Amino acid sequence: MKRLAGKRILVTQADEYMGPDIIALFREEGADVIEDRTDLTQPGACEKVIADAGHIDVLIANLAASANLGVTCMGMPDDIWSEMFDVMVHPLHRLSRAVLPQMTERQKGKIIVVGSATGLKGIAGASAYSAARAAQIGYIRSASQEVASANVQINLIAQIWVENPAYFPPEFQATPEFKEMFKSVPMPRLATGREDALFALFLSSDESDFFVGQAIPFCGGWAQ
Amino acid sequence: MKRLAGKRILVTQADEYMGPDIIALFREEGADVIEDRTDLTQPGACEKVIADAGHIDVLIANLAASANLGVTCMGMPDDIWSEMFDVMVHPLHRLSRAVLPQMTERQKGKIIVVGSATGLKGIAGASAYSAARAAQIGYIRSASQEVASANVQINLIAQIWVENPAYFPPEFQATPEFKEMFKSVPMPRLATGREDALFALFLSSDESDFFVGQAIPFCGGWAQ
Amino acid sequence: MKRLAGKRILVTQADEYMGPDIIALFREEGADVIEDRTDLTQPGACEKVIADAGHIDVLIANLAASANLGVTCMGMPDDIWSEMFDVMVHPLHRLSRAVLPQMTERQKGKIIVVGSATGLKGIAGASAYSAARAAQIGYIRSASQEVASANVQINLIAQIWVENPAYFPPEFQATPEFKEMFKSVPMPRLATGREDALFALFLSSDESDFFVGQAIPFCGGWAQ
Amino acid sequence: MKRLAGKRILVTQADEYMGPDIIALFREEGADVIEDRTDLTQPGACEKVIADAGHIDVLIANLAASANLGVTCMGMPDDIWSEMFDVMVHPLHRLSRAVLPQMTERQKGKIIVVGSATGLKGIAGASAYSAARAAQIGYIRSASQEVASANVQINLIAQIWVENPAYFPPEFQATPEFKEMFKSVPMPRLATGREDALFALFLSSDESDFFVGQAIPFCGGWAQ
Repeated sequence: MKRLAGKRILVTQADEYMGPDIIALFREEGADVIEDRTDLTQPGACEKVIADAGHIDVLIANLAASANLGVTCMGMPDDIWSEMFDVMVHPLHRLSRAVLPQMTERQKGKIIVVGSATGLKGIAGASAYSAARAAQIGYIRSASQEVASANVQINLIAQIWVENPAYFPPEFQATPEFKEMFKSVPMPRLATGREDALFALFLSSDESDFFVGQAIPFCGGWAQ
Repeated sequence: MKRLAGKRILVTQADEYMGPDIIALFREEGADVIEDRTDLTQPGACEKVIADAGHIDVLIANLAASANLGVTCMGMPDDIWSEMFDVMVHPLHRLSRAVLPQMTERQKGKIIVVGSATGLKGIAGASAYSAARAAQIGYIRSASQEVASANVQINLIAQIWVENPAYFPPEFQATPEFKEMFKSVPMPRLATGREDALFALFLSSDESDFFVGQAIPFCGGWAQ
Repeated sequence: MKRLAGKRILVTQADEYMGPDIIALFREEGADVIEDRTDLTQPGACEKVIADAGHIDVLIANLAASANLGVTCMGMPDDIWSEMFDVMVHPLHRLSRAVLPQMTERQKGKIIVVGSATGLKGIAGASAYSAARAAQIGYIRSASQEVASANVQINLIAQIWVENPAYFPPEFQATPEFKEMFKSVPMPRLATGREDALFALFLSSDESDFFVGQAIPFCGGWAQ
Repeated sequence: MKRLAGKRILVTQADEYMGPDIIALFREEGADVIEDRTDLTQPGACEKVIADAGHIDVLIANLAASANLGVTCMGMPDDIWSEMFDVMVHPLHRLSRAVLPQMTERQKGKIIVVGSATGLKGIAGASAYSAARAAQIGYIRSASQEVASANVQINLIAQIWVENPAYFPPEFQATPEFKEMFKSVPMPRLATGREDALFALFLSSDESDFFVGQAIPFCGGWAQ
């Protein structure tokens, strides 16, 4: 009765962002998980990862740059700006372009983007990150419509306020700045990584074939 | 390993809209389902249903009036207009008001509204229905914020294009009018009732505690 | 060069909500303003107001009940709940139904609803108000599509944080509760009533014929 | 009584997209318009345009690449993909970074992005374009919050279905493909360029200081 039994699932940036939590849960649920740790910003890297993996039922596009929270738009250097798109946006396109042909040919497959609610709602000090996360959302809304008739679904988890050593380390949670920001969140706690992975599980399973191109908030009510 | 084991779940309008599909799946998943068939437009009816049910872990607010599709705003009679609010909006408030005290006291509980994507996106010939469905969405967005800190979640399935004898009977699906409307849906098929119930299952289970006040489209990409 | 020269414009609840500011500006801009002070909750009142007014180029559906901010969904009495719909929702339908025939016949006309951003984004302590304001939005999204081909536009101002003796009196602005809420607004001041009226002017003029069924936030960035 | 009297306004890509219509109307309304035709993809170009212009009250970020409609995500070559971001996204950041310091210092100024509704709603055959247009929206939502307290507003026109020789030439309007797509638009005609410019005028004038970080659809009801 395992919910991902028989599925080969590729998870990018396996050690970062939601990679570890998703991989752990997906293995419990019977998936054959392929962990990728390649630097996907390199030319040809995305294409190679897909080619090497062979059959892929579900691609977890877990792509995360440092949020660099607090760098204002007026002080944003070119390298931070570019990194956002190089790490989170361009690889999403190249991975999708490489993996969708096998999925559409089999008339079955899913891409789940582990994205961000900052792509739906603005936040001061996050202009570059928001721009890149919004680009992911714009991409999946359109691309998903091209493959929906081939029974391939592309959806996105628009998350924020999820326990995560990179984005919400305990020392940041202790700051007055964090506490002030967190007042705007109706839920009085962060999500656990496992809760987030359970949502990824739902979207990766055969139980969610009717979702097409959606960026669904996972945010404790912050963006609804 | 049943996902709703030990949960007492009340489903309103048990014979209508998504009632039968939700009840069947929820029983398979171990829920103790209470089926309600009361006319909830009657004074005191909502309060009585909740009182009679006793302990309720999850309320499925499955409230549906006839969509009366095709009645224009200029031709809308008062009785059709009022029925929308009497059947779908006012009972949602009265049911919630009655059941939330026990949930907040236990610091655990969920309300899932089986709503409509027409509350998020307009459609000619459905002004009264859209207004009432949007009212449900406005209600849960605010009410959910009042109970989130008590670990009670209120969310809504913003559905459309789901197989359903009342809204999409085969004879309607055969009309040119339906076929023209359906061109705007990326997914080339209707959802089954069971697929819809599987989404209700996710939202009713302990796997979705971080969703607060969301109206999530379930629509084959129609509203994204 | 007056922007509303030659237009007959009906403004409901002329002494309340945005009525006075809109009426003052619209007269400066050359409109022939008809001020209505009727109790629109009475049977036949909406139909009579429209019939008595005769030719109407623009209807300003300025409909406001007390927000009753702070009444929770669990403590919401039936009379407050009902008043929201009786004052803000049902008259919108009846006014529209009565005025749209003359507008569609002339192939020209506009309805502007002075609504609220709480219909787009939830706020604790405002569940009934949000529900009714969302109903207005759902209504205009669908109804507008029925009359767009007759060159009639229906749009809505989704406002909040506008100077207003009823909703934001100076004594409320002085409270810690207000100051805490206001932290979530990027703009560091309330809008003036005149600024709000200037937006209503744009939507009422011949400069905005391509907007159909939109609920446009006017909120200092609160709901974007 | 000219609405832009005394304002120095920079319009980029002056000969393309909405440039000509905006420039013509803005001059009628008394603006001192600076027309830019620089290739903004070149290093240092954005910074030089702003430096050369001197005092700028309003920046019209009119940035448009070819939409390349119909290129699917599976067939999207790297050069088309990159061009979208090189032309529409990165210059928006660099122009904003260069011009915002003078605006925030004067405590007055506006940036209007001439964007696209495809950044809000997906469309098959436009994945790269949608991604870039959504990135613009994500950017202005966050960046606007950083400068709102300095009385500087950044907003975006999310347009589509506007008469335009590049995007909707008469020969494209005559195709069955266009006619099929256009069925999803409630308004039965394209907008004129002048109507679009009138909306840009509203957003550029002193009449719209309370809008912060909004992407407002201008689309005949297509995206509402």
